[in-house]
Amino acid sequence: MNNQAIKVALLGAGNVGSQVARMLLQDAETLAQRIGAPVELIGIAVRDTSAKRHFEVDASLYTTDADALIDAADVVIELTGGIEPARTRILRALTGGKSVVSGNKALLAKHGMELQAAAKKTGAQLSYEAAVAGAIPIIRPLRDSLAGDNVTRVLGIMNGTTNYILDQMDTTGAQFEDALAEAQRLGYAEADPTADVEGHDAASKAAIVASLAFHSEFTIDDVHIEGITSVTADDVEAAVADGFVIKLLAVCERDGDGVNIRVNPTLVPRKHPLASVHDAFNAVFVQADNAGELMFYGPGAGGAPTASAVLGDFVSIARRMVLGGPGIPESSHASLQATAMKDVVSRYSVGLEVEDKIGVLANITRIFAEHSVSIQTIRQNHLSGDEENSISSIRIVTHRATDADLTKCMAVVDALDTVREITSVIRVEGE
Amino acid sequence: MNNQAIKVALLGAGNVGSQVARMLLQDAETLAQRIGAPVELIGIAVRDTSAKRHFEVDASLYTTDADALIDAADVVIELTGGIEPARTRILRALTGGKSVVSGNKALLAKHGMELQAAAKKTGAQLSYEAAVAGAIPIIRPLRDSLAGDNVTRVLGIMNGTTNYILDQMDTTGAQFEDALAEAQRLGYAEADPTADVEGHDAASKAAIVASLAFHSEFTIDDVHIEGITSVTADDVEAAVADGFVIKLLAVCERDGDGVNIRVNPTLVPRKHPLASVHDAFNAVFVQADNAGELMFYGPGAGGAPTASAVLGDFVSIARRMVLGGPGIPESSHASLQATAMKDVVSRYSVGLEVEDKIGVLANITRIFAEHSVSIQTIRQNHLSGDEENSISSIRIVTHRATDADLTKCMAVVDALDTVREITSVIRVEGE
Repeated sequence: MNNQAIKVALLGAGNVGSQVARMLLQDAETLAQRIGAPVELIGIAVRDTSAKRHFEVDASLYTTDADALIDAADVVIELTGGIEPARTRILRALTGGKSVVSGNKALLAKHGMELQAAAKKTGAQLSYEAAVAGAIPIIRPLRDSLAGDNVTRVLGIMNGTTNYILDQMDTTGAQFEDALAEAQRLGYAEADPTADVEGHDAASKAAIVASLAFHSEFTIDDVHIEGITSVTADDVEAAVADGFVIKLLAVCERDGDGVNIRVNPTLVPRKHPLASVHDAFNAVFVQADNAGELMFYGPGAGGAPTASAVLGDFVSIARRMVLGGPGIPESSHASLQATAMKDVVSRYSVGLEVEDKIGVLANITRIFAEHSVSIQTIRQNHLSGDEENSISSIRIVTHRATDADLTKCMAVVDALDTVREITSVIRVEGE
Repeated sequence: MNNQAIKVALLGAGNVGSQVARMLLQDAETLAQRIGAPVELIGIAVRDTSAKRHFEVDASLYTTDADALIDAADVVIELTGGIEPARTRILRALTGGKSVVSGNKALLAKHGMELQAAAKKTGAQLSYEAAVAGAIPIIRPLRDSLAGDNVTRVLGIMNGTTNYILDQMDTTGAQFEDALAEAQRLGYAEADPTADVEGHDAASKAAIVASLAFHSEFTIDDVHIEGITSVTADDVEAAVADGFVIKLLAVCERDGDGVNIRVNPTLVPRKHPLASVHDAFNAVFVQADNAGELMFYGPGAGGAPTASAVLGDFVSIARRMVLGGPGIPESSHASLQATAMKDVVSRYSVGLEVEDKIGVLANITRIFAEHSVSIQTIRQNHLSGDEENSISSIRIVTHRATDADLTKCMAVVDALDTVREITSVIRVEGE
């Protein structure tokens, strides 16, 4: 065992930071044995040193001078979130040759390449398993385990809040608003749920995952984002009737020479492994040329699970420090581009409210055919009204079509006098 | 990019070896980009150079002189299986400072520590993701991702053949013999299915997984092994009635200062994630103090999936070679011991065939109580006979009890005149 302690600076003492501090202190002996050197938490940078924390540590560890703390450390663990000052601080650490563990998905999805470049320059490591799907190992499997394979598609339930809401809607028939309120009451959703329900949180993770899976440089700006606020109880009911469940999926898909990256509500067949991911759990389903279909499942958030991922990264970095030699930088040799949304091909479930007159269905199916959107199933239900003034709902599930064709088709259908409303258009994946 | 090629020696050209050769040759350009240096397959050691292979390569690559091939290589990929000559050849490579990728579970479960020690001495790496659960990343998550956490339990479906057989029995009600025959017809089971159905294959994997999960040195001799040959259609039917499915699980469980490692048929609640692992798929369910519950799912065998795991290991080793610095050896600092089977605590489902006389059930429940085996549920079904000579089946599901108590209890029950037969004793896990 080395006698020289590895000095750790912790930036942030929130839900995850507190758990990391607890593990570093409580498991110090075990960590030292696994690493081959003692570990010393030299300080915790916070905005307010007097604030109440989830886990109490010696008050002298707290400091507001993050820069001095970083400069005194061997390894920096950044758990503050947000773009600045996190970005500047991580760059300061990496430029100084100090390896960094970060759980900051927003920062990585926006400035990941800048941070990677800084790390590469000094041979420092930048690890971020905690940024995607909490405790579930997904960064390492993509970076290392599948490094000799060709990933073709990743489908991920990467946001626990929205999975909880959709699971509630699926199992209880609740409307979105009621399921959201319940999620807020239970602490699964924040008072301002925008980042979760509008898909931004999942989109950050999708950008990070797509970059690794396809050895290219993607940012959140490459991600097409649709949230779940427009998903209704009717959509869920129709999905159930057709043998599907609605999930908010992050989809990263190889598409010719490009990659299509999107977050959208998706119909998933009940038999697909992702369909049985309930509550606030996360799961990432990976398809690769040789490995076939893999799935990684677990808690996608929470202080202790996320801290577990942080500590895993830290131990790897510390072991490498003890042994010597640089970290292995990321490879982005493929330099693939994100494909335009209009070229993305998928299946769709389309909900319509129509006047129940002779020829309506024939008219609609003709328009679909004219736009090269092939129909797999149609279900029509009487909604209201008498024979004179009858209203029906129609649910159409299509075969594969481009986004552009489907969009044009919808515009023409929408213009029909007999069509009251296009109630929903949801993609279908996992078949 | 380095110009110096990394020279690879492949030992074995069977189902997996052929796929590895194919990937090394067909994906050479991509691999070179990911690694930062070209890769050269310098030869394939086989017993018979003229044999027909799954993937055709330049005949000049084949050689029967494995030692010369190893000596000329930078990295050795061993996919021959069996203890010797694989052990001697891997030791030759590691002693010569050449890193090794192996998928040889039997060898690793028996001589893993000797091989690790040889690797550590020269700073060479020994990687073996392919030895457990095919393409599913489980070695790396246990070694690295969970290195800062404390694993408490691993439950694994690690043998596809037996999962296929049990899944068939569960879904069709088939007897073991018929399901085995079907598995053999489809190529899921070998002509001699002993290694699979008797649990030996899963036991090798259990020893490897337990060593990593608990940072200790275990071999297959530490594993208690029960196969599935005695599982009957009646057992499956009773499991269904009680809300369970029968799986052959590898269980590695922290137990005080020890670890209990076993492979046995197990009742798993229908709602447990492992219950929905069908066909020949594998899955590994991991519980850790901080991460909570994780599951890894995918194809557990097959040429291409297993080759994907081999290539992942190879790329990691090659990247490290290009960058310099030694590999990270395994840590076995905890030095935990395997616990004796008699001390292992679990729940049990016990099947009895009894004479349906007054007082039989009272007698049996009294014996269970006297042996500290608490009963959770009892179900009694009339089997045959008239009122005078009636035979019933009894299925008892217990609360947690030690193996020793349960065994003693069963001996006393077995001695009762009214008990015709103890038809089955199966453990219950996952609650």
